[in-house]
Amino acid sequence: MSTYTAPLADMRFALYDFLGAETLYARLPGCESATRDVIDAVLEEAARLCEQVLAPLNAVGDQEGCRYDQATASVATPRGFKQAYEQFVGGGWSGLTAPAEFGGQGLPESMGALVKEMIDSANLAWGTYPLLSHGATEALKQHGEPWQQQAFLKPIVEGRWTGTMCLTEPHCGTDLGLLKTRAEPAGDGVYRITGTKIFITAGEHDFTENIVHLVLARLPDAPAGTKGISLFVVPKFKVARDGSMGTRNALACGAIEHKMGIKGSATCVMNFDGAEGYLVGQPHRGLAAMFTMMNTARLAVGLQGQALIERAYQSALAYARERLQMRALSGAKYPDKPADPLIVHPDVRRMLLTQKAFSEGGRALGVYAYALVDIQHHAADEAERRRAEELVSFLTPIVKGMLTEAAVECTNHALQIYGGHGYIAENGMEQFARDARITTIYEGTTQIQALDLLGRKIMQQQGAGLRHFLEEISAFCQARAKDAALAEFIGPLAVAAKEWGDLTMALGKRAMENPEEVGAAAVDYLFYSGYVALAYVWAKSVAAAEASAQDAGFKAAKRHTARFYFARLLPRTRAHRAAIEAGADSLLAMPDAQFG
Amino acid sequence: MSTYTAPLADMRFALYDFLGAETLYARLPGCESATRDVIDAVLEEAARLCEQVLAPLNAVGDQEGCRYDQATASVATPRGFKQAYEQFVGGGWSGLTAPAEFGGQGLPESMGALVKEMIDSANLAWGTYPLLSHGATEALKQHGEPWQQQAFLKPIVEGRWTGTMCLTEPHCGTDLGLLKTRAEPAGDGVYRITGTKIFITAGEHDFTENIVHLVLARLPDAPAGTKGISLFVVPKFKVARDGSMGTRNALACGAIEHKMGIKGSATCVMNFDGAEGYLVGQPHRGLAAMFTMMNTARLAVGLQGQALIERAYQSALAYARERLQMRALSGAKYPDKPADPLIVHPDVRRMLLTQKAFSEGGRALGVYAYALVDIQHHAADEAERRRAEELVSFLTPIVKGMLTEAAVECTNHALQIYGGHGYIAENGMEQFARDARITTIYEGTTQIQALDLLGRKIMQQQGAGLRHFLEEISAFCQARAKDAALAEFIGPLAVAAKEWGDLTMALGKRAMENPEEVGAAAVDYLFYSGYVALAYVWAKSVAAAEASAQDAGFKAAKRHTARFYFARLLPRTRAHRAAIEAGADSLLAMPDAQFG
Repeated sequence: MSTYTAPLADMRFALYDFLGAETLYARLPGCESATRDVIDAVLEEAARLCEQVLAPLNAVGDQEGCRYDQATASVATPRGFKQAYEQFVGGGWSGLTAPAEFGGQGLPESMGALVKEMIDSANLAWGTYPLLSHGATEALKQHGEPWQQQAFLKPIVEGRWTGTMCLTEPHCGTDLGLLKTRAEPAGDGVYRITGTKIFITAGEHDFTENIVHLVLARLPDAPAGTKGISLFVVPKFKVARDGSMGTRNALACGAIEHKMGIKGSATCVMNFDGAEGYLVGQPHRGLAAMFTMMNTARLAVGLQGQALIERAYQSALAYARERLQMRALSGAKYPDKPADPLIVHPDVRRMLLTQKAFSEGGRALGVYAYALVDIQHHAADEAERRRAEELVSFLTPIVKGMLTEAAVECTNHALQIYGGHGYIAENGMEQFARDARITTIYEGTTQIQALDLLGRKIMQQQGAGLRHFLEEISAFCQARAKDAALAEFIGPLAVAAKEWGDLTMALGKRAMENPEEVGAAAVDYLFYSGYVALAYVWAKSVAAAEASAQDAGFKAAKRHTARFYFARLLPRTRAHRAAIEAGADSLLAMPDAQFG
Repeated sequence: MSTYTAPLADMRFALYDFLGAETLYARLPGCESATRDVIDAVLEEAARLCEQVLAPLNAVGDQEGCRYDQATASVATPRGFKQAYEQFVGGGWSGLTAPAEFGGQGLPESMGALVKEMIDSANLAWGTYPLLSHGATEALKQHGEPWQQQAFLKPIVEGRWTGTMCLTEPHCGTDLGLLKTRAEPAGDGVYRITGTKIFITAGEHDFTENIVHLVLARLPDAPAGTKGISLFVVPKFKVARDGSMGTRNALACGAIEHKMGIKGSATCVMNFDGAEGYLVGQPHRGLAAMFTMMNTARLAVGLQGQALIERAYQSALAYARERLQMRALSGAKYPDKPADPLIVHPDVRRMLLTQKAFSEGGRALGVYAYALVDIQHHAADEAERRRAEELVSFLTPIVKGMLTEAAVECTNHALQIYGGHGYIAENGMEQFARDARITTIYEGTTQIQALDLLGRKIMQQQGAGLRHFLEEISAFCQARAKDAALAEFIGPLAVAAKEWGDLTMALGKRAMENPEEVGAAAVDYLFYSGYVALAYVWAKSVAAAEASAQDAGFKAAKRHTARFYFARLLPRTRAHRAAIEAGADSLLAMPDAQFG
């Protein structure tokens, strides 16, 4: 059975050396309390919880899954999940990054991201319950009326209640413009919500006394499409304006889904049957409100991918060191043993290094993206806040799309290293591959991330985020131009960044003439962007390691992994570039009828 | 729930137009009876069986799995599996390609491959039972003594008994040199076999009255390593020299594995406790004997990959036509509907075309490879037989490695097209992805295929197979040099083939200096080779379609798919080439301790 050890050394590197969190937090109003002492203590405590409480429940959750009881419309979570949640709440983890005014600890999101990584590495399915609460917190914090914040936010931050996001309906997932759930005004600011929502994560469970649903629905006078969608807060048990809990609301879980993975996460069909709800934000502006919560959730799902890569890597590495099979092609490396361990074989190392490069690179990229969220929320200077917002909104689809696709690849590499032993349930590797598979789908598929990146962030917003990012890369390359220790990375990085800009310009021109070029290039463009972004992260990681107080082995490992990344992963841009340049015709020319 | 329709039109194209089977079978001694009438009737009958009997059991097999009863050490297969097997045997399918002298119909393997594809598309887990019998048939046919062939082969060919291959042990899978199972001579040509074998497909089940295990074990005087392994036939119920069945043998299934997929296939732990067996072939030459059976099995697993691609594609295509979601970026294509069907979106088409290109290309490649087996077995001319053998032994790891890796990619594309609905069990898409995942592992992982290709077929055998294949491509390009309708493919194909040769030469040189270069490049070389091989197949498919009596739509679909292949998939060689040229250092330089 797979175990988990929180990678605290590399987490500290990502935060202190790569990001420079101490300097950053010291200058961001509201983040000053996040000193190194505090952070170290939080990370170590989180590691204990994740290693000792959550990780041992990961296989249990997969084997047992959630159980739905039709008679009571209730969902029982796997054995131990509820107790773990109680420990989580008892330790104050539910409000780690929430504002102090609602009972939270107000710590920076970039530090919270590392705690989230540990939770998701330890037990992804369990981690979906607090994740959704985090999303609901964001939406209410930004768009809720003061009484809603008092009544709903506080118990969520305290972990006494949890939150959900109710978007998808049977006939629409990606295309929310089609949604049918209705909201009828019933006076007194109350609305009656009627409709069916599906794929609702944590829609029903046994963790808490109440569940707060954030529901997209249409008011009677709503225009058609996405401009007629409003956001409502609809609790399982009614809540008065003073925050007191009342009777059961007219909503219930109608079924749970049997899924490929994350079986410990309750994926619910939610039936709203005239349930009482309250409007959040402006009428017909619900999609925009939901998107503020969705963007955070997308970064979070990107980190889920990275967390699974880390977890699977730990198991695969241990197995590669222990399992004896064949001799190295250049002669026995461990002649005293009956065979050499798997780790001597070059292709096993290729798979391990791919995982290591994505896990550590993904961690640094994630911490960087969340730091932009911190800057966006806290920086004193408005221009700095705006730049951070543009940059993180550009990076979000890259982080989400790239790290989740990498998670599918990397968990499968880990399984492959185990061979037949990876395909059987008992070693836990196939669970990681199954769990990872949802991450490229929920909170917007890779295809949607790609369209968000190329269609919205590049085409509609004139590539402001890309410009900021390329400027940052360029500044980094110039500052290191004479650094002999970095020369092997700076040259190729500068070339890749230049090509990224050129390719974007050329693609933009083609897309002005034919909008289908956007859809035809988007996914390859997302991958292309992801590989270049990670090249920057890896070059910067080597620089940060060199400048740090880390030991020689740590520095050498960063350098070797960066070399591997530049030699073996960055060249994948060659194939993506060719696909981008192939144009829309290669996809659109064939009439639908000829597909089969 | 997913349904299946045998793609008979494209199967006939692959056999008659692409391969030219009528001409081939007419000139191969022993294949003359396989006329077009016979083949068409066989394919149509097989389609009925697969569509109506096997396909409806696919989800059942996944839900129920196999059940092991400890008290009787017996395995119950899923509901309906045994009855389907009875229909299969009753229809004479078990001996379709087996020699007439043992009760088979002696039809060509290249035609049998299409029947196999249908079985695997319909129900991969069910298909593993007859598959293993096919392997046992091969081994006994080539290496068994006459009495063994009479006693064991006939009932297997008739389907009354099934066969297994018992290689893997708990401490060794890939590295059979480590195996420990012992065989003690007990006089009268009988050996007592003792040891534990794991991952034995169809090791125990309820289909037949007897099961014939082909077991690798060591004789008392065996040298260490792979040169001390012998092959034994060890039946579940003892068998006398006259073929009569006796008492129960001292072997039993000790457990079955819980796996990621192919849950309807019984994967058994087999305990041999002094079981009576008979030597097959020469002492200590068991591995070679097993490999004749393994090579056929590897081609067969490659086709399993292709079959899953086809099956998942059918579902994904149907869903893409029916599911309405978003509008095309260039404006509504179906303005009368509330949204456009998924198939209008370029990236959905990219995923569909990837599946189509691999399915149809993989089918043609598979038929071609199996035709080489037919030539190797039947051609009158010895030089032709030898060339076919060299060519198919070269192509086998490419077919196995490439089509199974493509199956993992393509079943995941199909799942992705379904979005969240692909992740839940009820639509069947996630089963295809889970089932596909075994194919890159069993019968030798992708890594082992890659080492077989580069280490054995290229380095040890001086690339005879590659030479034949490049000659064939070159001849094709020259013959079509002036064909304007093919010019768009011939140019790039000739360039790719030339580069394949050059890259191989350069790699070979580096590998002579450092054998680790083989392992470091092997998997990327396998992919590289696979993409070029499929480019040849696609160019030839267009040529074959143009020259055929197929209708205009069929011809156009081949051309469009070929264009997609050349524009979007062949360029993946760019990334693989860069990885090959990166060399072993990028994988080996980092000390083991620095991995984490």
